[in-house]
Amino acid sequence: MSGILYGLGLGPGDPELVTVKAARILRSAKVIAYPVLENKDSFARRIAAEYISVGIEEIPIIIPMTIERLPAQKAYDNAAKKIAKVLGNGLDVVCLCEGDPFFYGSFMYLFARLSKLFTVDIIPGVTSLTACAAVAKKPLLARNEHLTVIPGPLSSPELRKRIFEADTVVIMKVGRHLKRISAVLKELELEKKAIYVEHATLENEYVCRVSEAPDQAPYFSMIIVTKVNDPWL
Amino acid sequence: MSGILYGLGLGPGDPELVTVKAARILRSAKVIAYPVLENKDSFARRIAAEYISVGIEEIPIIIPMTIERLPAQKAYDNAAKKIAKVLGNGLDVVCLCEGDPFFYGSFMYLFARLSKLFTVDIIPGVTSLTACAAVAKKPLLARNEHLTVIPGPLSSPELRKRIFEADTVVIMKVGRHLKRISAVLKELELEKKAIYVEHATLENEYVCRVSEAPDQAPYFSMIIVTKVNDPWL
Repeated sequence: MSGILYGLGLGPGDPELVTVKAARILRSAKVIAYPVLENKDSFARRIAAEYISVGIEEIPIIIPMTIERLPAQKAYDNAAKKIAKVLGNGLDVVCLCEGDPFFYGSFMYLFARLSKLFTVDIIPGVTSLTACAAVAKKPLLARNEHLTVIPGPLSSPELRKRIFEADTVVIMKVGRHLKRISAVLKELELEKKAIYVEHATLENEYVCRVSEAPDQAPYFSMIIVTKVNDPWL
Repeated sequence: MSGILYGLGLGPGDPELVTVKAARILRSAKVIAYPVLENKDSFARRIAAEYISVGIEEIPIIIPMTIERLPAQKAYDNAAKKIAKVLGNGLDVVCLCEGDPFFYGSFMYLFARLSKLFTVDIIPGVTSLTACAAVAKKPLLARNEHLTVIPGPLSSPELRKRIFEADTVVIMKVGRHLKRISAVLKELELEKKAIYVEHATLENEYVCRVSEAPDQAPYFSMIIVTKVNDPWL
């Protein structure tokens, strides 16, 4: 019997926002895997740290720092081989995922390589989407409203179109695109309805209006634009 | 000192998908509040049951079964008054919320009435959005893709437009709109890319292709349409 591969959602950053289920699976895990950016520590492993038993096998997936796709894909090819070997020996492998495994998660790269060969179990986690809304105290959706989630790297015309057409927009992976996104929001006269959030639920959490956002936004930052005013009364 | 009002996200249904933080807050709660549909049991209270201490004060918010807005809003007016009294006496009130409090959550009705008067703390939860994706084994988003979340009751032309323009679409609150939504998906030749999920993470969880969905869909059912095929390789 082969082992099971778990895609384990760990939530947005606060270790207390891990689910009871994820905590249980982590505590009994014998082998874990997690992505690490070259020369950095692993954010996923940091969230999970207090639930991980001492002395278990760890498979770090070291992702090279380059925007080219091929080196990262090779890292996932190698990791998939290592993980397949452990699963083939009948041991489960728990893959640590920031947020939710299927919501902009790099777990998809392992899922694509291994889900046809092994049983994969996905444990959903709290996404940064609702964590940022909680921190910003901004309800995202009510009644028949709709929501669009877009990534910051989209082109400005594409951003403009998507933001214009939505009731509520959440822009993820803001990072170095902050200035450009702010300009689009200003053009659409939505700057006052836009909240900037970085590092939600961590000690260095920061929330402000987009117009007051810092010059340097980290990769894990987000903008929430809610157009409907108190529609829930 | 007034008490704190907690909007406590409980996740999609499986009590193990409650966060460690929500479990802790529930275990030490002295007063809880939760919505109940007239003559039904409370789904939120059912999820939370195993974490609730015996003999604490409970404030059920009984929502009349009508599509008119006013009776429900009156129920929230009354509930807000009761909760305000408890908070004013210096006790915290923990409001139980299915999924996440700010993601189509009825907690917004209390938030609108009480957040200017009292400290409100939002504890995000796992949404049915990612729980359904996990159950359906369908990654929602990768790289620069975008996601649109729409409610089933939207008009057919509006549904058609939103579905056509998105990379990934999640249609929530499908319920009695299933037939109409299926027709729109067929027209857009997206039926084969659409997965139907009901009661995700509960014992009666059910997943199938939209074309094979049951005639009667419950309110808590969802359709996931992913247009991009394995873009994460």
